[in-house]
Amino acid sequence: MAIGSSTTADHLRAALDGPWRDVREQARTQLAGDRFTGDPHLDYRAARARVLEQMRVLAETGLPEKGFRTENGGTGDPGGAVTGLEMLAYADLSLWVKSGVQWGLFGGAVENLGTERHREYIKRLISLDLLGCFAMTESGHGSDVANLETTATYDPATQEFVVHTPTPSARKDYIGGAAEHARMAAVFAQLVTGGESKGVHCLLVPIRDEDGADLPGVTTYDDGLKGGLPGVDNGRIVFDHVRVPRENLLNRYADVAPDGTYTSDIENPSRRFFTTLGTLVRGRVSVGGAAAAGARVGLSIAVRYALARRQFADPDTGAETLLMDYRNHQRRLLPLVAKSFALAFAQNDLVRRMDLIQTGRNTEPEAQRALEKRAAGLKVAQTRHATRALQECREACGGAGYLTENRLVGLKADTDVFTTFEGDNVVLTQLVAKELLTAYADEVRDLDAMGWVRFAATMAGDVVRKTSGVRQLIQTLRDRGDETVDEGDLGKRDVQLALFADREDYLVRTAAHRLRARAADTGPFEAFNNAQDHILAAGSAHIDRLVLEAFIDGIATVEDPEARALAETVCDLYVYSTLEEHLSWYIMHRFMSVERAKAVRRGVNELVDRLRPDALTLVEAMGVPEGMLRAAMLSDASVYDRTGS
Amino acid sequence: MAIGSSTTADHLRAALDGPWRDVREQARTQLAGDRFTGDPHLDYRAARARVLEQMRVLAETGLPEKGFRTENGGTGDPGGAVTGLEMLAYADLSLWVKSGVQWGLFGGAVENLGTERHREYIKRLISLDLLGCFAMTESGHGSDVANLETTATYDPATQEFVVHTPTPSARKDYIGGAAEHARMAAVFAQLVTGGESKGVHCLLVPIRDEDGADLPGVTTYDDGLKGGLPGVDNGRIVFDHVRVPRENLLNRYADVAPDGTYTSDIENPSRRFFTTLGTLVRGRVSVGGAAAAGARVGLSIAVRYALARRQFADPDTGAETLLMDYRNHQRRLLPLVAKSFALAFAQNDLVRRMDLIQTGRNTEPEAQRALEKRAAGLKVAQTRHATRALQECREACGGAGYLTENRLVGLKADTDVFTTFEGDNVVLTQLVAKELLTAYADEVRDLDAMGWVRFAATMAGDVVRKTSGVRQLIQTLRDRGDETVDEGDLGKRDVQLALFADREDYLVRTAAHRLRARAADTGPFEAFNNAQDHILAAGSAHIDRLVLEAFIDGIATVEDPEARALAETVCDLYVYSTLEEHLSWYIMHRFMSVERAKAVRRGVNELVDRLRPDALTLVEAMGVPEGMLRAAMLSDASVYDRTGS
Repeated sequence: MAIGSSTTADHLRAALDGPWRDVREQARTQLAGDRFTGDPHLDYRAARARVLEQMRVLAETGLPEKGFRTENGGTGDPGGAVTGLEMLAYADLSLWVKSGVQWGLFGGAVENLGTERHREYIKRLISLDLLGCFAMTESGHGSDVANLETTATYDPATQEFVVHTPTPSARKDYIGGAAEHARMAAVFAQLVTGGESKGVHCLLVPIRDEDGADLPGVTTYDDGLKGGLPGVDNGRIVFDHVRVPRENLLNRYADVAPDGTYTSDIENPSRRFFTTLGTLVRGRVSVGGAAAAGARVGLSIAVRYALARRQFADPDTGAETLLMDYRNHQRRLLPLVAKSFALAFAQNDLVRRMDLIQTGRNTEPEAQRALEKRAAGLKVAQTRHATRALQECREACGGAGYLTENRLVGLKADTDVFTTFEGDNVVLTQLVAKELLTAYADEVRDLDAMGWVRFAATMAGDVVRKTSGVRQLIQTLRDRGDETVDEGDLGKRDVQLALFADREDYLVRTAAHRLRARAADTGPFEAFNNAQDHILAAGSAHIDRLVLEAFIDGIATVEDPEARALAETVCDLYVYSTLEEHLSWYIMHRFMSVERAKAVRRGVNELVDRLRPDALTLVEAMGVPEGMLRAAMLSDASVYDRTGS
Repeated sequence: MAIGSSTTADHLRAALDGPWRDVREQARTQLAGDRFTGDPHLDYRAARARVLEQMRVLAETGLPEKGFRTENGGTGDPGGAVTGLEMLAYADLSLWVKSGVQWGLFGGAVENLGTERHREYIKRLISLDLLGCFAMTESGHGSDVANLETTATYDPATQEFVVHTPTPSARKDYIGGAAEHARMAAVFAQLVTGGESKGVHCLLVPIRDEDGADLPGVTTYDDGLKGGLPGVDNGRIVFDHVRVPRENLLNRYADVAPDGTYTSDIENPSRRFFTTLGTLVRGRVSVGGAAAAGARVGLSIAVRYALARRQFADPDTGAETLLMDYRNHQRRLLPLVAKSFALAFAQNDLVRRMDLIQTGRNTEPEAQRALEKRAAGLKVAQTRHATRALQECREACGGAGYLTENRLVGLKADTDVFTTFEGDNVVLTQLVAKELLTAYADEVRDLDAMGWVRFAATMAGDVVRKTSGVRQLIQTLRDRGDETVDEGDLGKRDVQLALFADREDYLVRTAAHRLRARAADTGPFEAFNNAQDHILAAGSAHIDRLVLEAFIDGIATVEDPEARALAETVCDLYVYSTLEEHLSWYIMHRFMSVERAKAVRRGVNELVDRLRPDALTLVEAMGVPEGMLRAAMLSDASVYDRTGS
């Protein structure tokens, strides 16, 4: 697995490993063996205990420190923290989630929303002396965080906040750590002072004593069994007038003085709210990365199985045919492998952007917001991909795919909720679309319908190309003049990118028109709702384009010419299979002739055919060490591979 | 829930309940409560024991007897048996599978492949005095049953068969009952007598003694944890020269005389093999039905949740919006509800056809083979639908959907393997396509590539319409002249059906051309493989058309005019959303103008909008009793439903 050795797979892996390739290489060594794997035979209580023990081992490795600034006792390497955590997904997704909750969400809230006075907690949470949870979601409000119902009412008489759950729907729900292990919660609540609500703020609330018993006024419940992630103790929390000191407010962006006076450097409440949430972007960056990692494990297993398993004799030769030699099997798996390549490059690029901002090396005013949009979009793309890819892998491995010992069902079950948590994919896609439609109008980051309509109305056409720089990239590609597929100019990268950008542009522009045209007649909600599928398509088209750009940039980092040529073909497959999914749109909107559409369909077949001999190379390039696949069927080839005997 | 009462939902449910509506009504009463439900907190060994106990209760209800002929001690009601079993899917899919293995697969093999001398077993297996399993699949051969490797070699010296597992890949695998409970296996093996192989036959092999210990020469293994179905004890069996008496051969279609002479009424070995398999069609009929039942449970839960859960305030009213009022949510769920209607009618029709044949009331020579094709096609359609619908339901219910207590993840996990067992969906779709392409040429039922090419080459165009009677149905619809949607003639049922039939016709005809054209150059395997995606599309198009016909026929059985009108709208949604999935194909092959394609897309939006007020009626019509939904979130509405308070 040494970087720089001679195989094509090594060269590709080096590029796909990205800027934090050392972290990945180190993790491949550290995570070998079964020290960090899950054990599917444990019941969920034992599974949780196992994960907590594994976290205690991780706490000694220096990984958690990477995520925190040096002044807080960390080593200040946010990109390394996200990448190192992502590698845990190869071992066990419960371990990844529970580690992410402790060091990413809980730790991230204290680090990014707190101030000096909360610094004491950070050392303790890094070392697991303090176990925490991130209590944002409520049973009644998940996506609509601005309307959480939990209250934190300031009492100047005692200089305390009174944290309370006023309705059944205000209970905190699905909170990782809340069922068993967390001793403290970062609670998001409506801050009330002087009888006035100031919107959602975060404060630290101790919830359990040292023995694990609920503290007075706190009642926790266990969410019990879930579709997967057995090692994560999700639960509910209900607060009955729980008092915490004034200092427990995480006061980076707003504070309450002892007398109850509310102050904030950010006047606009909406902007304050989104600034607060924006600091937590690392969660979304991480979820997307872990989902894509899970998909890579599954695809590695399914492709390797298809390279061993045979079924039905070829009448020409008498030998039984490898699954991987069937056109349909190639079409099932190879476009997903291509998309995994695309997303790996996109994730590396995203982490790099995040790292530049969070280490203070990029201070452009729009950078943070652009990062949030990109993180939202890639979270959607990667989690959607994982769900689809792992389902396809399971089915492509037949009965063997259904056995837990072959891991695919576990990967599917564990990642299934990734499309929901850290932002439901539908809501996030809307958020991305809204940023496009409103052209970053600063005041309208919340998702109410009024904002959609008002700001869409002011938008000029062709905004996407004007603001995104895609136009320049297309020109650069044109100047470079490289052609990679023979099928006329559809094989040219600039033509491909233009097709992606055309779709995005057109969808954004016409969605704006549609909102504008209807709003007067029907009111903003009806106008928004009537166009919702259109809006979502615009968001998705934007994401597709970002991913393609990242793929193009990523290819340039492949040093070996032969490996780069292979990456170009993989990129073509990503492009053609993405275009194929939207073929009716392209024809209906006259961006493609019927003839060209047929060329796309043929092209997918030609490309999977061309990539078939490199299937194993592509899997090795994805970088999941063979020893971490742990699928019983792969070490038992004689049982599945009957070479016409 | 009384039939014939006054609500629209009751009228629809009566029609959807179909010919065995009494069986369904009885089951709704019998299955109420938690006697037959699964308990997700049990480990898999305890879950298996629970299911076995539930089966002992079922054995007393008279349900198992329905599946067997009166001369064998049954009550001769195959349609009632399949329908009654299907209802178990509402309670627990492990119970459904394990019951299906015992009474359907094992019992069906003895009943349909055995003769008088095996009659003694049937009473015992009905009462569960004899627990059996169906040992067909091997680790190395699942889809390619004709090439199973297990041997049953006749030894005239002792008048015994020697059953043997000659290679690692010949082990029986994924066999329900093999891990723990089965005492006897119906083993499919290559019969060898006089040194000559006679192809795959089935014989009864005792595998365990009364205490559950493996008998001499038999070694069983536990497949262990799976993606779902914890109550089913799937396992492996390896035979080491196990001897069974000559009489243990299930000898309905072939026999071996004491001296080893092989005789069969069916000369052609391929035809003999497919006749043997054909008698087992009930398994495929049942799997499709159970998958669709699981999807109905999931959709009932997700739609009801969407009618309670609110998120984001409508700026026009200030009230929070029900999930079901979002366009995107309607588009996610309602087309799946429409498809559930379509498939319920199609399943009733399939069961009726099966019942007519298996009770000897339909003896047309082509009927059995047509039934097999239809069963294969509907197995694919229903299991694919279940996988897709349950995934969508999970995601549409967000975090709540991920909790086991809300059932969606369990339904998804349990039904996931349905796309694989009783015939992998890809292989079955090919089988359907092959029947179309070869126009039922009797000799080519196996799936080798040679057969595809040889017989496709002799096929004339327009076979589908000539043989299927769809042309007549289209004419009948034209004569009837009913219009149900306003959007030009796209709303006319005959136009819709013609669009479905055109697609099927065209795909079948051009697949044949393509096979023919390439076979000379590349050999049959390459020709087949090159066209595989095309062939699969032809099979799917056929299935879509069959389902639409069944929907049209089903609507005619809705007695109440208002209910019938609603069913017509649901049928339109099935048609429009199916057309939408294939829009690029229709445009590219000039069966639709771009304008018409746009009308289809708009039509889906209009139809979900029109059906929105009837969402609850549609759910009630699907016929899963509210008491059987058992999703915690539905009985806890105050937690999720915040009406802008």
